[in-house]
Amino acid sequence: MRIVFIGAGNLASQLAPQLALLKSIEILQVYSQTIESAKLLGDKINCDYTNQLDQITTEADLYIFSLKDSALKDVLSAMKCNNGIWVHTAGSIPMEIFKPFAQKYGVFYPLQTFSKSKSISFAHIPFFIEGSDEQTESELLGLANQLSDNVRLLSSEKRKEIHLAAVFVCNFTNHMYAIAADILEEKEIPFDVLIPLIEETTKKLSHLHPKQAQTGPAVRFDENVINKHLSLLNKDYKEVYQLLSKSIHKMHSK
Amino acid sequence: MRIVFIGAGNLASQLAPQLALLKSIEILQVYSQTIESAKLLGDKINCDYTNQLDQITTEADLYIFSLKDSALKDVLSAMKCNNGIWVHTAGSIPMEIFKPFAQKYGVFYPLQTFSKSKSISFAHIPFFIEGSDEQTESELLGLANQLSDNVRLLSSEKRKEIHLAAVFVCNFTNHMYAIAADILEEKEIPFDVLIPLIEETTKKLSHLHPKQAQTGPAVRFDENVINKHLSLLNKDYKEVYQLLSKSIHKMHSK
Repeated sequence: MRIVFIGAGNLASQLAPQLALLKSIEILQVYSQTIESAKLLGDKINCDYTNQLDQITTEADLYIFSLKDSALKDVLSAMKCNNGIWVHTAGSIPMEIFKPFAQKYGVFYPLQTFSKSKSISFAHIPFFIEGSDEQTESELLGLANQLSDNVRLLSSEKRKEIHLAAVFVCNFTNHMYAIAADILEEKEIPFDVLIPLIEETTKKLSHLHPKQAQTGPAVRFDENVINKHLSLLNKDYKEVYQLLSKSIHKMHSK
Repeated sequence: MRIVFIGAGNLASQLAPQLALLKSIEILQVYSQTIESAKLLGDKINCDYTNQLDQITTEADLYIFSLKDSALKDVLSAMKCNNGIWVHTAGSIPMEIFKPFAQKYGVFYPLQTFSKSKSISFAHIPFFIEGSDEQTESELLGLANQLSDNVRLLSSEKRKEIHLAAVFVCNFTNHMYAIAADILEEKEIPFDVLIPLIEETTKKLSHLHPKQAQTGPAVRFDENVINKHLSLLNKDYKEVYQLLSKSIHKMHSK
């Protein structure tokens, strides 16, 4: 299977090298809007690269579009026709976005947080696959199964709910870590002291529903502590603290 | 060392049985406001229990107050004088709360989230100790060192900052999990699909500062995705999503 990567961001930077390791795969080319990031990824996996949409080869079997959602439509419109399968890797874009542009298309969505500077194993990452027809679906499933033991078909409808939930458990959770780091740095306390607590908070998920696992001043409605905490925070963090405490209290009052 | 527990909540229910396992420790009594929870913990560790403050023995060497912050002062006022060390286990209460009531006092604060129904190892839990005098401090350090390899002295001033940061990384993070569970349950998608993502989000903390680790629509300021997500949420969750996205964007615009 010959593959072209359209996009060289966080996800493509992790996925392309993993695919390049597979015997059945040849990565033909990497496209990125800037030549620097196209070259960076192209050199890493030893393939051709370009920042010109009209230079993208039409010879590949699979085109993996891994772009900021808002950029995808413009790129699709500018692509030359070809006979390959077109897929994107996004949580919140319906498969049907490809319909006007390609004959065979689908979705190849790994549910994970990717950073260029932190490499990651794909072995257990959940992949959600969708295809325009059975043959396409089966080719995409076959490819995902070579990377991960956690692959399933899922509709665009359900995929967007998973992506939404993922923003809460990953991006928003990570922002809680960033705020905590900021609070501690100001007092010269190392962030490390929080690691056992963070680990236990996630471990609890295997034993308790997160609603049942909740602890702390908001669920106890301990106004004493809540008010002390609010007095320590700047305006922005205070707003976050207040809204989340209210939201916890509300969930537990139902 | 003979110990009395004042309070039989989540923390006491985990700490008392661990202390009871130590050869040098005898737990004399458990007090709780309700006789049911006093009996539950007392029976578990095979000791006397009461829900009457005036029935608390004056014979112990250490009194561990593990109560809702707002209840502590009333309980302290109602306690009979004795010669034991009085400590609390709270993040946000200054040590000096004991000054009017006891001669020797301190803080014995394990930084962790405790639920009655999820037992936990204390081996690596960070303990933060404070004592009214050197001798008291050394006794409390000695006790904590028997439970954990992660014990240090810390001022009330710094402890309250750690407790504040803990609310963000534990309670607020857990609330993100609870909201995600709620979103998925409505579509009959199992919460399990999110576990690899949750694990990677915490693993990243050993490699990247949380600010550098951030991914997703808010940090990319991908209004397309953000607006799609907002349209899927109820009023309460929408408010949380909006404020946290704004807060992420603000942190990354600095």
